[in-house]
Amino acid sequence: MDRREFACNAIAIGGAVLSPRQVKWRQQATLRVDGRRVNDHLRELAEFGKNAQGGISRVAYSEADLAGREYVMGLMRAAQLDPSIDAAGNIIGRRAGRDPTLPPLMLGSHIDSVPEGGNYDGQVGSMGAIEVAHTLADHALVTRHPLEVAIFQNEEGGKTGSRALSGEVEPAEFDLVTSSGLTIGEGIGAIGGDRSRFASVRRRPGSIAAYLELHIEQGAILDKGDIDIGVVEGIVGIKRWRVTVEGFANHAGTTPMDDRQDALLAASRFVDAVNRVVTEMPGRQVGTVGQLTAEPGAPNVVPGRVTLSVEIRDLEMDKIDAVYRGVEAEGHRIGEQTGTTFDFEQFYTSYAAPTDERIRRLVAEAAGELELTSLRMPSGAGHDAQSIALLAPVGMIFIPSVDGISHSPREFSHPEDVENGANVLLRTLMKLDRIDLD
Amino acid sequence: MDRREFACNAIAIGGAVLSPRQVKWRQQATLRVDGRRVNDHLRELAEFGKNAQGGISRVAYSEADLAGREYVMGLMRAAQLDPSIDAAGNIIGRRAGRDPTLPPLMLGSHIDSVPEGGNYDGQVGSMGAIEVAHTLADHALVTRHPLEVAIFQNEEGGKTGSRALSGEVEPAEFDLVTSSGLTIGEGIGAIGGDRSRFASVRRRPGSIAAYLELHIEQGAILDKGDIDIGVVEGIVGIKRWRVTVEGFANHAGTTPMDDRQDALLAASRFVDAVNRVVTEMPGRQVGTVGQLTAEPGAPNVVPGRVTLSVEIRDLEMDKIDAVYRGVEAEGHRIGEQTGTTFDFEQFYTSYAAPTDERIRRLVAEAAGELELTSLRMPSGAGHDAQSIALLAPVGMIFIPSVDGISHSPREFSHPEDVENGANVLLRTLMKLDRIDLD
Repeated sequence: MDRREFACNAIAIGGAVLSPRQVKWRQQATLRVDGRRVNDHLRELAEFGKNAQGGISRVAYSEADLAGREYVMGLMRAAQLDPSIDAAGNIIGRRAGRDPTLPPLMLGSHIDSVPEGGNYDGQVGSMGAIEVAHTLADHALVTRHPLEVAIFQNEEGGKTGSRALSGEVEPAEFDLVTSSGLTIGEGIGAIGGDRSRFASVRRRPGSIAAYLELHIEQGAILDKGDIDIGVVEGIVGIKRWRVTVEGFANHAGTTPMDDRQDALLAASRFVDAVNRVVTEMPGRQVGTVGQLTAEPGAPNVVPGRVTLSVEIRDLEMDKIDAVYRGVEAEGHRIGEQTGTTFDFEQFYTSYAAPTDERIRRLVAEAAGELELTSLRMPSGAGHDAQSIALLAPVGMIFIPSVDGISHSPREFSHPEDVENGANVLLRTLMKLDRIDLD
Repeated sequence: MDRREFACNAIAIGGAVLSPRQVKWRQQATLRVDGRRVNDHLRELAEFGKNAQGGISRVAYSEADLAGREYVMGLMRAAQLDPSIDAAGNIIGRRAGRDPTLPPLMLGSHIDSVPEGGNYDGQVGSMGAIEVAHTLADHALVTRHPLEVAIFQNEEGGKTGSRALSGEVEPAEFDLVTSSGLTIGEGIGAIGGDRSRFASVRRRPGSIAAYLELHIEQGAILDKGDIDIGVVEGIVGIKRWRVTVEGFANHAGTTPMDDRQDALLAASRFVDAVNRVVTEMPGRQVGTVGQLTAEPGAPNVVPGRVTLSVEIRDLEMDKIDAVYRGVEAEGHRIGEQTGTTFDFEQFYTSYAAPTDERIRRLVAEAAGELELTSLRMPSGAGHDAQSIALLAPVGMIFIPSVDGISHSPREFSHPEDVENGANVLLRTLMKLDRIDLD
């Protein structure tokens, strides 16, 4: 118990004299973040890497990223978080808990952006986490668990920082050139990490009591549904296939319609079939053909070959496989119908990372207590929480993105939603602090 | 009447003494080209620009083209055709007729190829035309009309030579860089033409009695149908459109299926609809989507924009327009259904060039007399005959292409089909020589 907590031990609220325990409960029930402050911080952060379109280009390891990180460490100090940079280059702000034997509760997100990004992705969660710590400090509240606020490096370029904690980063990744122009290995040095000790940041499963991340939805479900808070059920798994449709390239003038093996006609029927298979199954799975190339690609030649991508996402990997089986069967059926062949090659898998059911309930409860509406929903996008889910129970809180726009200067969330999100984060943290999840 | 014709004026066939007129008819009824010679010439010509794949790269104005043209002029001299190069760079071989007041009958084709082309496209018609003249010379037969054999320059790169005769070449075309590396203007000089007098080669309508062109089909209709001769009804007209489908690019993970404006899904339904509209109408029209680009083109982004080409060909321009109306309506219907917009921009028109019905009948008659099967059919590909059709009645004779392969080293026509084609060309020419089409 520190000095400030001691000062709050006996206080008169509404004229009645309350016991220290009653005081604490009352205080926590009415505890709120400073909505103006968190939104001010978001605005200030948006200056680093600001671009003409009103967004930011603050790719990991860039000058703007370095400057933004300095700003963040200043905010941490003001919030009585003791910031340091780990060997992977993550900024970790720490605050002691009342019970030093407990593993820490961790809040986190990132401040790096995609090129030509917006001012909310990662940043709402980062400013929200620091605001929660600041609010605790303002009220001299000390959590039972130690508290860590992590600003993970290079989320947009491959979740390097959070994957360092889960030990997932492959040696080859250090040589990847990022949008900053530096390789990941060089970038780690540029932001104050130490590549030679990179492996030391790995955390043991069970070494984090729980992880919470506040984030913008990056979709339009909350915005269109006029819902305040998304209780994230998990980060969806992803599988991707490269599909090659082989027909026969032929002169578009001299080849009668019934004598064609048109790979683009076959591929087109397939794109429609992917949509049909995905939408006809019950559930919230999504399936996308995002890439398609027709060869040789001249107006006067019947296409002989098409390559295209199929991506399927769902919270259940089994569901992804079931959808794929339907999609694959449609490909072969269309191949027979059109005199073409369909070849499928899987080239990417990202495993689904469900959030912890107990934490979901606490998030929903926190939202309810704050008189906010909430909806359980998957996260279709990847997040740092996905890496930490390999180590600890995780929870995610979404706030609405206007029109679902993200990775764009037009990305926007209303200040009141930012405040709501930070309040739900604070409240969920306090609830988590009271229980032992294991 | 020249010396050799005179020598044939009285001859004994089968023991009976025939009148000069009877002799001529008999002679013409049994008149045949030298099948071995024309195929030998084809093989010899294939040496110029020969490539490792067994085809040729003899693009207009290249060294191989220049060498091939020298070879052709030698063949013309041997066939008693007096070759010269006109100001546009066409090789024109001339032989006087019995009536110098008549306009010439013209036979023609080209010897330039596409890059990595084959040994038959253009070359069968060129060798066939010279063979016809050679056969006449062998038998000391002089046609009533003057005879011209035209080897048109740069057919594959824009029918420059034949379009010079019809006055269609635009000044800007001289600056186009061809596959040879030279511009068309430079190329004309390289092959012995004179750009400053280019316009002088233009011919008046009516100044050519008729034009005949023998060519490989470049499709598989004759080959698959086991038919000897194609009686070409005309060269199809072509219209091309650039279609832009605008949807909304969105995150493939965070955008539910029912909230997408997927430009590629819309475009795919459209590609299928183009095929349906084209095939459901009676007739031999063809419609092709040969080019398609989806943007931004990443596996994890719902495509926001697709651009694609639509090409429609038919012998009747009205039919092309009718098909287009159906295609356009489908686009707008699909746009409404998918929350996308379809924009159509026409960017290319090539007018249909019907052959002369009287010449078609003569070609079919000639084939029948030679006990060859024939089929009336459109030409889906463009040919020099298309340019000359603006000046004169034209006819075209097709021979089978094995598997319809063309513009490829795998292009092949059987020697007996080459011989058949040259015989039909000869016979049709003799029939045309006897009549006045006007």
